[in-house]
Amino acid sequence: MDPIGWAYVSVGAGVAALALAAYSALRVMASPAAGERVQEPAGAIRDGAMAFLLREYTWAAAFVVIMSVLIFTLLDWGWWGTVAYVLGAVLSAVAGLVGISAATAANTRTAEAARQGGVRRALPVAFRGGAVAGFSVAGLGLAGLGFAYLVLHEWLEVADAVEMITAVGLGGSTVALFACVGGGIYAKAADVGADLAGKLEAGLAEDDRRNPAAIADSVGDNVGGVAGFGADLFETYVGSLVAPIVYAAFVFGTSGLGVRAVVFPLAVAAVGTAASILGSFAVRPRGVKLAAALHRGTYSAAVLTLLGVFGLVYWVFDGVEGVDHPLGLFVAVAAGLVIGLAASRISEVFTSDHHRPVKEIARQSGAGPTPVVLEGISDGMRSAAFSISAVAAGVAGSYWAGSWAIPESGGFYGVTIAAVGVGSILAITASVGAFAPIADNASAIAQMSREPSRVREATDSLAALGGATAPAARGFAAGSAAVTMLALLVAWRELVNSAAASAGRGAVLDTINVLRPGTLVGLLLGGGCVFLIAALNVKAASRAAGRMINEVRGRFREGPGSRKGRAWAQLANRVNVPAGTVLRGLLLPVVMAVALPLSIGFIDVQALGGFLVGALVTGLLLAVSMVNAGGAWSNAKKLVEVGAYGGEGSDAHEAAVIGDTIGDPFKDSAGPALNVAVKVMMMVSLVFASAFVG
Amino acid sequence: MDPIGWAYVSVGAGVAALALAAYSALRVMASPAAGERVQEPAGAIRDGAMAFLLREYTWAAAFVVIMSVLIFTLLDWGWWGTVAYVLGAVLSAVAGLVGISAATAANTRTAEAARQGGVRRALPVAFRGGAVAGFSVAGLGLAGLGFAYLVLHEWLEVADAVEMITAVGLGGSTVALFACVGGGIYAKAADVGADLAGKLEAGLAEDDRRNPAAIADSVGDNVGGVAGFGADLFETYVGSLVAPIVYAAFVFGTSGLGVRAVVFPLAVAAVGTAASILGSFAVRPRGVKLAAALHRGTYSAAVLTLLGVFGLVYWVFDGVEGVDHPLGLFVAVAAGLVIGLAASRISEVFTSDHHRPVKEIARQSGAGPTPVVLEGISDGMRSAAFSISAVAAGVAGSYWAGSWAIPESGGFYGVTIAAVGVGSILAITASVGAFAPIADNASAIAQMSREPSRVREATDSLAALGGATAPAARGFAAGSAAVTMLALLVAWRELVNSAAASAGRGAVLDTINVLRPGTLVGLLLGGGCVFLIAALNVKAASRAAGRMINEVRGRFREGPGSRKGRAWAQLANRVNVPAGTVLRGLLLPVVMAVALPLSIGFIDVQALGGFLVGALVTGLLLAVSMVNAGGAWSNAKKLVEVGAYGGEGSDAHEAAVIGDTIGDPFKDSAGPALNVAVKVMMMVSLVFASAFVG
Repeated sequence: MDPIGWAYVSVGAGVAALALAAYSALRVMASPAAGERVQEPAGAIRDGAMAFLLREYTWAAAFVVIMSVLIFTLLDWGWWGTVAYVLGAVLSAVAGLVGISAATAANTRTAEAARQGGVRRALPVAFRGGAVAGFSVAGLGLAGLGFAYLVLHEWLEVADAVEMITAVGLGGSTVALFACVGGGIYAKAADVGADLAGKLEAGLAEDDRRNPAAIADSVGDNVGGVAGFGADLFETYVGSLVAPIVYAAFVFGTSGLGVRAVVFPLAVAAVGTAASILGSFAVRPRGVKLAAALHRGTYSAAVLTLLGVFGLVYWVFDGVEGVDHPLGLFVAVAAGLVIGLAASRISEVFTSDHHRPVKEIARQSGAGPTPVVLEGISDGMRSAAFSISAVAAGVAGSYWAGSWAIPESGGFYGVTIAAVGVGSILAITASVGAFAPIADNASAIAQMSREPSRVREATDSLAALGGATAPAARGFAAGSAAVTMLALLVAWRELVNSAAASAGRGAVLDTINVLRPGTLVGLLLGGGCVFLIAALNVKAASRAAGRMINEVRGRFREGPGSRKGRAWAQLANRVNVPAGTVLRGLLLPVVMAVALPLSIGFIDVQALGGFLVGALVTGLLLAVSMVNAGGAWSNAKKLVEVGAYGGEGSDAHEAAVIGDTIGDPFKDSAGPALNVAVKVMMMVSLVFASAFVG
Repeated sequence: MDPIGWAYVSVGAGVAALALAAYSALRVMASPAAGERVQEPAGAIRDGAMAFLLREYTWAAAFVVIMSVLIFTLLDWGWWGTVAYVLGAVLSAVAGLVGISAATAANTRTAEAARQGGVRRALPVAFRGGAVAGFSVAGLGLAGLGFAYLVLHEWLEVADAVEMITAVGLGGSTVALFACVGGGIYAKAADVGADLAGKLEAGLAEDDRRNPAAIADSVGDNVGGVAGFGADLFETYVGSLVAPIVYAAFVFGTSGLGVRAVVFPLAVAAVGTAASILGSFAVRPRGVKLAAALHRGTYSAAVLTLLGVFGLVYWVFDGVEGVDHPLGLFVAVAAGLVIGLAASRISEVFTSDHHRPVKEIARQSGAGPTPVVLEGISDGMRSAAFSISAVAAGVAGSYWAGSWAIPESGGFYGVTIAAVGVGSILAITASVGAFAPIADNASAIAQMSREPSRVREATDSLAALGGATAPAARGFAAGSAAVTMLALLVAWRELVNSAAASAGRGAVLDTINVLRPGTLVGLLLGGGCVFLIAALNVKAASRAAGRMINEVRGRFREGPGSRKGRAWAQLANRVNVPAGTVLRGLLLPVVMAVALPLSIGFIDVQALGGFLVGALVTGLLLAVSMVNAGGAWSNAKKLVEVGAYGGEGSDAHEAAVIGDTIGDPFKDSAGPALNVAVKVMMMVSLVFASAFVG
């Protein structure tokens, strides 16, 4: 088969994923909608989520315009580059919109299915809602990138086409930055506000209809957990494909090996997507273990991907000059999947209530908030140390495998292929990730519309399932992001050197040598920049939560009437996270993630190398720490709420809620924001590489 | 003057510092001791501190034996190396013992002076007690290193002598690791235990004699704040001198420049020590601003050092071949001092109650513990970002200055000289740092012995002064440690290459290239290792605090009698931090800080480079974050305790106490432990460099 055929296959696989998303959406819509009582809160949630998403996209659009001008003026790519960039941005935005629409349709239907048939009927509805989001992300990413590659490849030189492919990635990154950072701040302000003012102070249960922040909390689940998380994954996915394409094009050139190595990542992604489609059919509740149903989907997709790639490497690379052992590239893909599963497993051990860390935090809650917080922070950092060790081992393994496969410069190709490997089954892992907020929403809706306890028990157990499986999905995403960042760093070196060569200069970036003073300074600044972004994000979420708490208190002070329940729409309108607060929290991190690499790159491209490395290593560690600490606190609180160490209303519960509210901005706002910000830095550096050295 | 004469001068300056320490000790002892009522708690504190210190030194001694065996067997240095190593360890231990003795003698005398003459008479007593500790550290460090250099230089080749000088540094590091990590865990367990069980639960005031953990808390101030902090500074000080000596000896060789460049750091340290002696006389309370008295000492020492070094650079380097502009080395020293003062100022702004961050945390305490914790963590990370930017700017400046001074390879010499610059006035900054725990102790003693409120007000204002100036001293120490680590990294490269050359190999470490796979893996592991050490330390402190809380609760449950006060010795014996818990918290970090660099170094010395860089950048950021967040919480709590936002007993107070108790292990245990651990990694790498490449 002509290697370029694989690009067509990838477009086909992307379209198939979109078809599955459409099918899942139809199945969700075909599920009976709920009665009017349920429609009311659900409608408020949908309207709130859509309104915020559109506002976010407006800001993002303004930023896209600025970046388009920069791309058009600083790079001599003509219109092609700008079009590619806008394409990436639009695809990511569409994925977010589709995801939110599906999630806000699936949440009431999940609640209704729970009413009609319990957990067993509700789980598939919620999962299909998640699948719409997950498969849209993967489908749009794969089809879009494959399409862009085919078009650009048709009209331009390979090197130019590949360079412009990076613009697609940057487009996705831009939208992800806004969706993830903005959505995270919104979500956590609402969550913390609802918990602190509603639960602790007013003594209301979770999602009590009298808690005026309950709607905002559910809106937050959607804009943060569906749109934000989806945008983050879209960015990682596209980035994981861009890295090997760039690397292969510039290192292996237009040789037979080069042409094949460029399309191989697309082929792997096509296989992984097909496997995810099959895997998604394995998700149906059997027996008593609900979590097993979700895990079955991921694991079967992983196994099918490995089987497919085993054949693929021989099909693509057998007998190609320069390739000694095609099997090595299979090992690289496997190493990537192992990193993802290891990171996912580490997150699970540290954040699930079946394992020691969370149990220990819950136990400590009897001793007050201090040990709860210290224990959680400590566990978060510990999990980050383990995660990064897994990534390090995976990098070493995939480098070795790549060198074994392609002795000449194949090592780092192996690392970039590992990134593709871990991203390959994104469709299914993203579906599992998006399942959690839908289940949470369904539980909130059941609570708000005062369904009988039988129904609430069903939706609660779905929500608990989401709480238990989300960390694994997030861990997988973090592992995927980590390898992708490393792959992008490696690809960046090749792009810079090749750009320098075409500008008539020698290789300007043979090494990123930390013992060179400029690089050392860059390294320190990169690490500092990550800490600053995290600091600003936490502060923004905390401040926004403070405003939210004041609002809720104000509502309660207005008289006993407001405690007794009012019309949903009214409440939703009254108590909302102020968009201005969220925007202010967004601005500085966005500017830093884009402007700093740009300006450092123009001054000294090697210093930019140091900057990226510093940002990468601190960003990985800090993000995983924050996400896992937050997850652990959240599940420890749930353990206490189901009765451990005193249960609801006890001092232990108060301590556990404090831990949970500290962890909320960590796990859903700052942690993901760091991940996205570092990827944006990488993407900006990639796109503007030729301007830096031109 | 013969360049080696400067080594004699440095020994002389060290002896002069010791003389000042002795003089201060005599003045302290001459100050009237307190009556029996005060003697009782004071005696319990002294005995507790000594007992713990000796136990810690026993563990350290066992470790020193192991390391001595490794040094003797792995390196072909004969007995010299082992003797140098043990010398460094003994000097650090002696400095710690002297410091603790002085501090535990000065605390009662400060309380007594407050009784007799108020703050004005008490401040000099406390400061002199701190000066004994501070000047012993500097004097033993400078005299010891100068002496070791003279002896080794007399009997061995220059290169061998310089190499073995690193063993002195490692000796100091070994003791620092135990003193700082162990002392920190002890101190914070006691502090948190006293605060949570005594203050919050039983409603007792700070240092109430009925709080059975009050004595342990004061013991902790000494073993953590005096012995631990002193050992940390000793390590930094010796490290800052070792780095330029190693660099100059291996880069400039035995040329005229080389001989002068090797002794120049000793000369700068001699000037700085002399300036510190003079500066210490400027510390006497005038007018109303007590803090000004302490700052005056530091600033006048800094100015005098600059004046002295301005002359020194011409004296040492004028007309020497290879040196174009001696002034450049003055600029490098100045850059170092500026880094120190900037880091100190950043710490102050973020942790003093005169500035916005702490005021904001106190304001947020009205909204509960969650915003207090989030705000503090955010401020800590922000301050770390600013600090590391200051360090980056200082590195850039001193590199430039060094290149200007010595065009051939002078840039990094400038960076190592900046480390000497910031360390040069260590005697006075360490004195200010050790002032805080003495003042704290005096205040505790006055409270426990039920002095009249007039006396307690005086000692409280001293303690508040200590709380306000300690962050600046700690910030200075952190800045100093940061530049020293970078200097050691640079020196390490030269040592490795020279060792490789004598083993008949080429330069094995021209670059620390992050794009080399092994180095990249090392980088990731280094960052992970720092997070793991921090995690273990926080957990150890939290667990030890938990045991402490249980003990205190047990005492209270024993009946109303125990709440009404008992004999001090009895209480002190009953409620103590279990040594076993502390030891367990020590073991893994100690092993990791030593064993990991050793084993990685033997496998791949370039990977060790990556490891050190990863540990350095994440260690700097995490340590500063933790220390400053802790300081901010502590002073926010004090703001609330003096009446802001509801004062003692209010909900705001409870929230502020929670923040403070979370920050205690951050600022006094984990943060300093990270600093020490990373320096130990550097020192181990330096000492065993020739074994790695041999």
